Amino acid sequence: MAIHQHLLDLVELCVRKEIRQAVISPGSRSAPLTLALARHPQVTTRVVADERSAGFIALGIAQQIRKPVVVVCTSGSAVYNLAPAVAEAYFQEIPLLVLTADRPKEWTHQLDGQTIYQTEIFGKHVKQSFEWPADFVHPDARWFAERIANEAVDLARTEPRGPVHINLPLREPLYPSADETFAFGPVRVIEQLPAMPALPPETWHRLQDDWDSAERKLIAIGQGPHDPALLAVLKKMSEEWRTPIVGDVISNLPRNGEFITQLDVFLNLSDEQIREDLRPDLLITCGQSFISKQFKLFLRSHPPRQHWQVQPHTRLADPFQSLTRLIPHDPTAFFEKLFSDVDYQRFVSNDDEADSDDGYQQTWQTLDRQATRMVSQFLRDETVFHEWAVVQRLLDQLPTDSQLHVANSMPVRYVNLSGLDENQLVEVFANRGTSGIDGCLSTAVGAALTTSKTVTALIGDVAFFYDRNALWNNLVPKNLRVIVLNNHGGNIFRIIDGPSRQPELDAYFETSQPLSAENTAKDAGMVYQKVTSYAELKAVLPDFFAPGERPRLLEIETDRRTNAEEFDRYKRLVKELNP
Amino acid sequence: MAIHQHLLDLVELCVRKEIRQAVISPGSRSAPLTLALARHPQVTTRVVADERSAGFIALGIAQQIRKPVVVVCTSGSAVYNLAPAVAEAYFQEIPLLVLTADRPKEWTHQLDGQTIYQTEIFGKHVKQSFEWPADFVHPDARWFAERIANEAVDLARTEPRGPVHINLPLREPLYPSADETFAFGPVRVIEQLPAMPALPPETWHRLQDDWDSAERKLIAIGQGPHDPALLAVLKKMSEEWRTPIVGDVISNLPRNGEFITQLDVFLNLSDEQIREDLRPDLLITCGQSFISKQFKLFLRSHPPRQHWQVQPHTRLADPFQSLTRLIPHDPTAFFEKLFSDVDYQRFVSNDDEADSDDGYQQTWQTLDRQATRMVSQFLRDETVFHEWAVVQRLLDQLPTDSQLHVANSMPVRYVNLSGLDENQLVEVFANRGTSGIDGCLSTAVGAALTTSKTVTALIGDVAFFYDRNALWNNLVPKNLRVIVLNNHGGNIFRIIDGPSRQPELDAYFETSQPLSAENTAKDAGMVYQKVTSYAELKAVLPDFFAPGERPRLLEIETDRRTNAEEFDRYKRLVKELNP
Repeated sequence: MAIHQHLLDLVELCVRKEIRQAVISPGSRSAPLTLALARHPQVTTRVVADERSAGFIALGIAQQIRKPVVVVCTSGSAVYNLAPAVAEAYFQEIPLLVLTADRPKEWTHQLDGQTIYQTEIFGKHVKQSFEWPADFVHPDARWFAERIANEAVDLARTEPRGPVHINLPLREPLYPSADETFAFGPVRVIEQLPAMPALPPETWHRLQDDWDSAERKLIAIGQGPHDPALLAVLKKMSEEWRTPIVGDVISNLPRNGEFITQLDVFLNLSDEQIREDLRPDLLITCGQSFISKQFKLFLRSHPPRQHWQVQPHTRLADPFQSLTRLIPHDPTAFFEKLFSDVDYQRFVSNDDEADSDDGYQQTWQTLDRQATRMVSQFLRDETVFHEWAVVQRLLDQLPTDSQLHVANSMPVRYVNLSGLDENQLVEVFANRGTSGIDGCLSTAVGAALTTSKTVTALIGDVAFFYDRNALWNNLVPKNLRVIVLNNHGGNIFRIIDGPSRQPELDAYFETSQPLSAENTAKDAGMVYQKVTSYAELKAVLPDFFAPGERPRLLEIETDRRTNAEEFDRYKRLVKELNP
Repeated sequence: MAIHQHLLDLVELCVRKEIRQAVISPGSRSAPLTLALARHPQVTTRVVADERSAGFIALGIAQQIRKPVVVVCTSGSAVYNLAPAVAEAYFQEIPLLVLTADRPKEWTHQLDGQTIYQTEIFGKHVKQSFEWPADFVHPDARWFAERIANEAVDLARTEPRGPVHINLPLREPLYPSADETFAFGPVRVIEQLPAMPALPPETWHRLQDDWDSAERKLIAIGQGPHDPALLAVLKKMSEEWRTPIVGDVISNLPRNGEFITQLDVFLNLSDEQIREDLRPDLLITCGQSFISKQFKLFLRSHPPRQHWQVQPHTRLADPFQSLTRLIPHDPTAFFEKLFSDVDYQRFVSNDDEADSDDGYQQTWQTLDRQATRMVSQFLRDETVFHEWAVVQRLLDQLPTDSQLHVANSMPVRYVNLSGLDENQLVEVFANRGTSGIDGCLSTAVGAALTTSKTVTALIGDVAFFYDRNALWNNLVPKNLRVIVLNNHGGNIFRIIDGPSRQPELDAYFETSQPLSAENTAKDAGMVYQKVTSYAELKAVLPDFFAPGERPRLLEIETDRRTNAEEFDRYKRLVKELNP
């Protein structure tokens, strides 16, 4: 029996519960766990030295497979380097099983190396933090560890999904002797049956009545993965019931002539009559956060009479300050049942007309079409080379059926203002849990390691260099395409209103940085290209996106003053938009 | 009056309390604080984009000035990126005032951007975590904020010093309008008088008696800054009383013919009789951690009858598992008083002989001299090019009266095994609070920004690339000298005993990485040189260490197998050492 047999059992349990991906950072205290994962034939392991990046790579993998990914690090400050990814996973509801090696508790704060207070170190940013005993002599200790392992794995994938932490104090010896065999034997599996919240029939009747009696109904979809079943029922509701369906680009709600995706453009309009015309009586939302600040401000100032949030759990968030009803239910199943129940009811009562709010949907859709046209026209102009226009050309050329990972700060805003067409079949990801710039590139690397599709990471220079250790490993896969929008600083501070007026803009906010991504790309074995004009951009894009044997990085250099001026021009155009 | 006048008052209070250095990471939520610091004429600010690096740069500054440094970051995951530096500062007892901007609490976990659970986010790794109110309408709220500000600043610099956190929820508007004036007016200062723990006369008599009645006395100094007064009294005790004084290189106890610094070499000896001869009756320690694992193991297996720890506070650590008495006192003052009291007593009693333990000191010093000779001879050999021999040649050439920042993992071990001579006047720093590799380079940058001396950072390739954002700012000063020991992997895992025996050594522990530091150096505007032989090394060192207008980076490439083989050869030589 191995000295750390309980760790072998933990790994075996993960495998039995279908957790088979691990991201490991090197370390001695964690060595027994590393070896257990490395030696299990059914576990895929990846080694990443910088724990900050390792955490986000794991998050990127988990985002794809929608199952928990194991993250392993050694004791000490290594653990804190995982914290940014853990927080992002928590708010984005991505399942992770964070296994941190620790010294036995008696050595905490005793002037011995790599020992910090690891118990519950992630605070409220994990669903739960467990801790194993250091000693397994008493049978209750073994039972305790087994039970924790079962609970932790299942908790990570129970809605709302998220990171779960087990701190593992380990005694020496940490490395097996030559004659120690590793056997993954039988383990105690406590099976947790999958269950979803269900509503009693009376409740459904009440919801149906409320739906029917509401005049202006609006469905708004927050951040979520591409979900064909959800999109199908929403499209039917839009087409047959004339219900406006709105969302951001991170909702993976594409532009298709039905859905309303240009919120952030046309809700800029100051005309109070239009805003009043857009106010819903009943708002139904699902999914996570919205990028569009305009949409949030609109709803906070024009609250619906009723606001239902449909989600598979009961954690309460009220971002529009308007919530009246929390409906614990799977959103797709909810809309499907609502649609079929109401539809059947209308059939029975021989009322096969659409809802009476045709005009309401039309108002939304007209504004959306006008906004789309205006943006398209604005971006078609090639008089000056600026970032948003660059982004539009990139979006137009994205490979069909590929993935787009948009970094925080300006890229996600540009992409949201542009939108994506349904026939592009592009799935969009962004770290909107905490909206940090700290792991956007690593997350894309994790995704590219997992899917065979092309993964395009669109990222600004500050976020790129911040997280460049995403490319410092032996993993960077050939399907990764990184596009660095290099304006040599935090351009967002020049584009948004407050900081751009301060004399400290350059020194304290935009903070110019001179680097080119070339060295980082080449160090990572990526094909590197750089463009500074539309002509060059058009010339390189087809090759750039073509499948190839090496990952690629395209650097697009723009002038940050021009970017800000063009954005100002756009804002003036919006104001002139006459609905 | 400024909208965020209370933040201006906070900055003014810091200045009144002599805190005048700030490291700022850009952000919008933190903008009012950034502007308050930037506009105060007596505050020196530095802007660093990557918060992980910013935290360690602040730590490097505080290490030099021995006063709290202000660290500012925006809300969200930015805060967690500070955590590794906060933990290091906590265990290394470096004062920091960590000011994190936050959204008003009502927005936490409401699907709005850059909002995480920041209240008490650093857990036990700050001396205390405070939180300001978001609203200052009620006078009690203003009094509360003033009181917190006073308490926080003083707490950071009260022994044991360390990081103190104030979380600052801020409401919009975050940016002042053009006509808003910033006035740093009078603020309420609560003065905290400096005080040190003092022992009553009876206690001193008891200590003196215990000292006199103990036979074999050993004084061991843990990590601490260079302290001439402490070294002076310790030298007197060694010379006049024949008390052996032992320490690591991070104790800043230099080799001078008196002090015993090669512990980690000669305590490897397996001869039980020698170990028994070295066992102290009374051990007195001060300072923080020891690097030497051999010293810790020796004391744990050969505990003294009495062990006194002298320190200016009452936090109890017992790394040798032998502590019998905690003496809350300034160590230098303690040894000075002990020396003068005992000396006077002996004068009065006409007993001017040294303590009776001449032989005891001789045993330690003889072993130390033998070890020094053996190491010196081992390293003189130039048959093969290996890392430790390289380190020795670097140490020999360090500029007089300069600073050496040694990174964790192998560099700090090599330097400790080599030691430094008193006449070199080199002060040694290392992040031994948590012993992480995550901020060693940033800490050196912070130091170089603060001192006019030459600051040499000695660092392995993994730690270097991990923390390369230390060089991604517009700050890298000309007195910085970075030496990268590049063996293309985590060589320590091949050198220590356990992992080197595992088939997973290369893939999971040493984890080879192919990068050269050249691109990073050039990106940072540093003069770059690379050597791969002793001859090249000798040729470049004089120029490398000469003062100049640009910072420099020297990359020394070695073979990790050779490094491990040579270290094995050293270990065999130690075993043969005949005392």
